[in-house]
Amino acid sequence: MKGILIIADGLGGRPTDLDGKTCLEAADTPRLDDLAARGAVGLVDPIGPGIRPGSDTAHLSLLGYDPYEIYTGRGVFECLGIGMDVRAGDICFRANFGTVEETGDGLRLLDRRAGRIETGQEELEAALAALTVTDVPGVEVAFRASTQHRGALLLRGEGLSRHASENDPHVVDAMIPASEPTVAGDPASERTAAAINEITRRSFELLRDLPINRRRIDAGQPPANVVLLRGAADCPHIPPIESIYGVRSAVIAGGALYRGVGLACGMESIDVVGATGGLDTDLGAKARAAIEALASYDAVFVHVKGTDNAGHDKDADAKRAFIERIDRELIGPLTDGLDWLQTHLAFTGDHSTPIDYGDHVPEPVPVLFVGPNVRQDDVASFGERAAGRGGLGRFSGRVLPMLFGYNNTSPKFGA
Amino acid sequence: MKGILIIADGLGGRPTDLDGKTCLEAADTPRLDDLAARGAVGLVDPIGPGIRPGSDTAHLSLLGYDPYEIYTGRGVFECLGIGMDVRAGDICFRANFGTVEETGDGLRLLDRRAGRIETGQEELEAALAALTVTDVPGVEVAFRASTQHRGALLLRGEGLSRHASENDPHVVDAMIPASEPTVAGDPASERTAAAINEITRRSFELLRDLPINRRRIDAGQPPANVVLLRGAADCPHIPPIESIYGVRSAVIAGGALYRGVGLACGMESIDVVGATGGLDTDLGAKARAAIEALASYDAVFVHVKGTDNAGHDKDADAKRAFIERIDRELIGPLTDGLDWLQTHLAFTGDHSTPIDYGDHVPEPVPVLFVGPNVRQDDVASFGERAAGRGGLGRFSGRVLPMLFGYNNTSPKFGA
Repeated sequence: MKGILIIADGLGGRPTDLDGKTCLEAADTPRLDDLAARGAVGLVDPIGPGIRPGSDTAHLSLLGYDPYEIYTGRGVFECLGIGMDVRAGDICFRANFGTVEETGDGLRLLDRRAGRIETGQEELEAALAALTVTDVPGVEVAFRASTQHRGALLLRGEGLSRHASENDPHVVDAMIPASEPTVAGDPASERTAAAINEITRRSFELLRDLPINRRRIDAGQPPANVVLLRGAADCPHIPPIESIYGVRSAVIAGGALYRGVGLACGMESIDVVGATGGLDTDLGAKARAAIEALASYDAVFVHVKGTDNAGHDKDADAKRAFIERIDRELIGPLTDGLDWLQTHLAFTGDHSTPIDYGDHVPEPVPVLFVGPNVRQDDVASFGERAAGRGGLGRFSGRVLPMLFGYNNTSPKFGA
Repeated sequence: MKGILIIADGLGGRPTDLDGKTCLEAADTPRLDDLAARGAVGLVDPIGPGIRPGSDTAHLSLLGYDPYEIYTGRGVFECLGIGMDVRAGDICFRANFGTVEETGDGLRLLDRRAGRIETGQEELEAALAALTVTDVPGVEVAFRASTQHRGALLLRGEGLSRHASENDPHVVDAMIPASEPTVAGDPASERTAAAINEITRRSFELLRDLPINRRRIDAGQPPANVVLLRGAADCPHIPPIESIYGVRSAVIAGGALYRGVGLACGMESIDVVGATGGLDTDLGAKARAAIEALASYDAVFVHVKGTDNAGHDKDADAKRAFIERIDRELIGPLTDGLDWLQTHLAFTGDHSTPIDYGDHVPEPVPVLFVGPNVRQDDVASFGERAAGRGGLGRFSGRVLPMLFGYNNTSPKFGA
């Protein structure tokens, strides 16, 4: 049997979203409602009741892992998702191009995202190929740009640690702080902090006078003249999905983080042209790629990000419209194209991102399972309150292991 | 936003309580029903499914902590709740005045609660100011009386341990047992056991001939002539609520244990005249104090104990009547006095205390949440079976973190 897991990022909402309804409840989703009618629904706490999830920890939990046990930080998933080769001992960071100005006291932050720069990342990445660490012997550094202002950076060498503070002050007009070891007296933390501080300085030197930045300044745009680092992580110990369940699986995601989580769990990543990790993503292309992938993989995880983007932007209409696009352009082709006698499908979110707050909240997320082995319940629509009446009840994480359970590929615990 | 958590001790019941209904189901509770109609209900296992909770462990779990990780014993909460200064290394006990008679073989227990003594505790406490430990060098002792036969005792000194057995045989007519170290060969346990044994002997010497006890004997009442110790605990490591959620919180409770749990979790305690921790408590005064406290605190935890007392007394009518008083005298003023656009309220119990059994049982307890961010469900009454149909489903502990989630004050785990 085949399995398909679809996670719509930040899917859940609150009654304050749209006149007493969540965006999902307000959206017209006949195909999701049909799947709910054919299957069973419930509520899932991505990590646990009352726990406010990050996207990375929530995905690990939904994929069947205990994030309290294995999570080391976001950076490693960003590096993996961008296609970097991560090895044991490497320290990985989530990176942003930022805008700073030089002052007598150091660098002052003007924009954390360099105006959400849209073009020219190749030139910036090429310039950073010259980035080296010389203050700390034996340390190599690699940088890779991804979408807009985003990228990832990796340090490799003996005796490094994720216990060094960020160079990102998170507040505009603040000075770029020196990285400090967060484990006092630990030489590895001290070496890593020194490397970060050299990268702050050297990235500014390498980027500030690039042609792209001169053009941006001339056009009144903030230059991308520094690399901001956060989410330091070392390589987590995650048993691959195939080693636990004996199934081959693939991830289809526009966002680097989600590809990275899938890769870290042993999935293979399938690139889809037009999958942007944004509201403009090509959902039809993802649907076609998923159907195609199920010919050669046992399971496919499809991630869509636009729901969360609209939630963070506090744009209820955009979130509702994107959910309706998911229903029409992703669920529609899957409904028509999957072999429903041989496939189980799970659809859920990784957390709730309500419009009023514009960030993740702990409330649980609706989940649906459909396929030949699912015990059908009486609920025939898909939404937060409908899911509260569903036959699956309320549970925490582990949606992918439940999908593998329906597919009869779960390992037995005990005898 | 503001949060208010109300825990009615031992709220839950069984259909054997009152002709097929629980006391809560049989009670007339129009105001709780109205809150249920405006909000969402569910069932909470205070610690976990099938786990029979103590009041202390259940409260820790509902407040968001893992009692398996942090719980060391009840004594520390009793000491804190009575207003004693507890420091790292102290060993705390729950204490009872008991009645013993001297025999050739030692002290024989006649009454574990000295006839539930109602007056004269000041005289007993004053006499115990002379209580010292001389058999074990470097150990200080402090005793404080609370309500009726109850009190708390604290040992301070180097090299003490909670691993020493009680001097309370729990059975009338039994001999008072010598405390023994429960960790073999551990000097700290041996020192503590020796201190307990000296306290048994010295408390009898200090109390037996007091005027109050001569009067009690003359009146045919059991004298309060020994201090019984149980619930030995050292100071647990509990991260304060403010350090986790960034909110200032207060506890309003008549019972010392509940004040102590709140204090141990970093709440400030608000004294309310007339809050007795019994069936005769002034619920209206507690409601007024809670509304007033919300002007200066982000969250208030209100504890009411009478439901549990009636359950332990196997008095169904008293339990039902007390629940109706909660509805009228506590929920009524809160319904009228809270700013419902800016407040979330949670109401639940810390465990079930059914009438037939008269003690805690593992069955889950109904819980309701109401406020602007709560996804309303279809249930419009508050009771065990209604809660089983609620939109919150069934979950374990963590009611306070869920309340903070609705208030947008939860820390994010991950990124």
